[in-house]
Amino acid sequence: MESAVSSTGRRPLKVGLDVGGTKTDAVAIDARGEIVALRRLRTGWGPDAVADTILAAVEELRLELRDDDVEFVSVGVGMPGQVVPGTARMRHAVNLGVTDFDMATAVAPRLGGVAVAVENDVKAAAIGAYALHGSVGTIAYLNLGTGIAAGIVSDGTLWRGARGTAGEIGHISVDPQGPLCRCGQRGCIEALAGGGAVAERWGRGGELPIRDVFDAADGGDEHAMALRDELVSGVSAAIRVLVLTTDADAIVLGGGLTGLGDTLMTHVERSLAQSARASAFMTSLRLPERLRMLPQGSAVAAVGAALIGSTAGLTPLENHHHG
Amino acid sequence: MESAVSSTGRRPLKVGLDVGGTKTDAVAIDARGEIVALRRLRTGWGPDAVADTILAAVEELRLELRDDDVEFVSVGVGMPGQVVPGTARMRHAVNLGVTDFDMATAVAPRLGGVAVAVENDVKAAAIGAYALHGSVGTIAYLNLGTGIAAGIVSDGTLWRGARGTAGEIGHISVDPQGPLCRCGQRGCIEALAGGGAVAERWGRGGELPIRDVFDAADGGDEHAMALRDELVSGVSAAIRVLVLTTDADAIVLGGGLTGLGDTLMTHVERSLAQSARASAFMTSLRLPERLRMLPQGSAVAAVGAALIGSTAGLTPLENHHHG
Repeated sequence: MESAVSSTGRRPLKVGLDVGGTKTDAVAIDARGEIVALRRLRTGWGPDAVADTILAAVEELRLELRDDDVEFVSVGVGMPGQVVPGTARMRHAVNLGVTDFDMATAVAPRLGGVAVAVENDVKAAAIGAYALHGSVGTIAYLNLGTGIAAGIVSDGTLWRGARGTAGEIGHISVDPQGPLCRCGQRGCIEALAGGGAVAERWGRGGELPIRDVFDAADGGDEHAMALRDELVSGVSAAIRVLVLTTDADAIVLGGGLTGLGDTLMTHVERSLAQSARASAFMTSLRLPERLRMLPQGSAVAAVGAALIGSTAGLTPLENHHHG
Repeated sequence: MESAVSSTGRRPLKVGLDVGGTKTDAVAIDARGEIVALRRLRTGWGPDAVADTILAAVEELRLELRDDDVEFVSVGVGMPGQVVPGTARMRHAVNLGVTDFDMATAVAPRLGGVAVAVENDVKAAAIGAYALHGSVGTIAYLNLGTGIAAGIVSDGTLWRGARGTAGEIGHISVDPQGPLCRCGQRGCIEALAGGGAVAERWGRGGELPIRDVFDAADGGDEHAMALRDELVSGVSAAIRVLVLTTDADAIVLGGGLTGLGDTLMTHVERSLAQSARASAFMTSLRLPERLRMLPQGSAVAAVGAALIGSTAGLTPLENHHHG
């Protein structure tokens, strides 16, 4: 167990950031994993602006906590893209305008040498979801966003795989006659249920196109109903794939589409019940019992990033407001 | 590391059995995992006959080794069905005529108290395939037999899951218009590629119906060509599912269908190459490089069972021929 008091006598906190395409969530958590500070910022575009966003987020947390006797012992960052194994380098974070980003050179020197770590955002969220789930057993975190991907955590260990594609279930084809996926295959789960693919087929723009699709489907629009059915069948397929490969105790749904809340959950549960009616085997899997949806706006990826960051080392970051 | 010499001064061997629907493979392996004795027996039907088969197999190994100064330290058994977690009880081994089989009462007392263990045969084969693969990284063993299932081993640990359905990828549907599966769903991988399902649709009997299908397809029979295409697409889908969920270093093919040898491999590689041509993402996964096929008749499930048995304890079994 980690000590609740650091060598300097101040309360050690771990910082975690979830750097998304539009916004960045920042949390500071204590030794028990409780969030003691939470900030949200707009994310800058391109490597320099992303580095500035990270530093600004840490600074905002520090300001929020300036009256407490704390110190930041680690900074973990979740962002889209692929980590170069064994480094703090992130590649192909395309929706941040970043092709190659090394936390060790771009951020760490400006944090007074504190330990920094970086992780793919879905994998970070899986770590956070595992903690939220009580840190026991096996969970599969299913991220329903612009794209579809999963992160699997068992007995505290994130499943990484050989080449960084573990959990890329969005590109499993479940219908050879299905819509064309941006990956080139047909009927991928992501082509059916990814927010990006569905919005593109909807084609009417809007701030929240997937909500518009669900609303129009409720109103009887046939195109919208077809898109909603495809989306729901894609999410259900993803859940079945995760249970039949990992047999996880819990499938935790997160990501932008879960902003649809109960509406999405109701449709997915109905679809799972339908497949269970046709199959005693599917019934025996008890899929609905395993399903969880993250509370809206939960900073699970930021919490996960903080937990990942803390394993990278515990060099204290000087909190100059308490110097 | 285990000692190469036991407390009695004799060379300790681990026994592993693969109890299949028609035949039982039995091996004795040494501390380095080398097979020092190998036997094949016909499997009896029903719980009593299965227990007798297990005891006869151990006795045959003992006879084969009667001139060596060895002792059997553990007996591990792989068989179809589901293990009751934390016990040596196997349930639902339907193709052995067994609904509930407890090694601890049915077999162990007649083995002089030696440690016994039981495991699902596909999971045992996965352990054996991992050892064959050099005991490093992550492998997914894909069993292509009457049914289709997989076992995943990472860093020496078998992925078990919450309720025993980890690796049951045969019941992932990859085509909503596909053939009806015995599980009640449509287009399951097992409905497309399981030896039982394909033989049933072929409907002409024969000793080796799947070989007949491939031969007839080579001869231009359209029904056979359609069945072969479905089988190959099912196997390819299983490989993609395993890579996109586990990202295993190697996908190891085993089971009865691999008796087709190069013929099967050539068709599967062609199918994977086809999906890679359509998709840069699929190309980046380098599926053909990860593919391995077990040598025909390799006793991988028996070896895996021996390795599982050895973890259950090392109480020596008195080798009466050396008493």
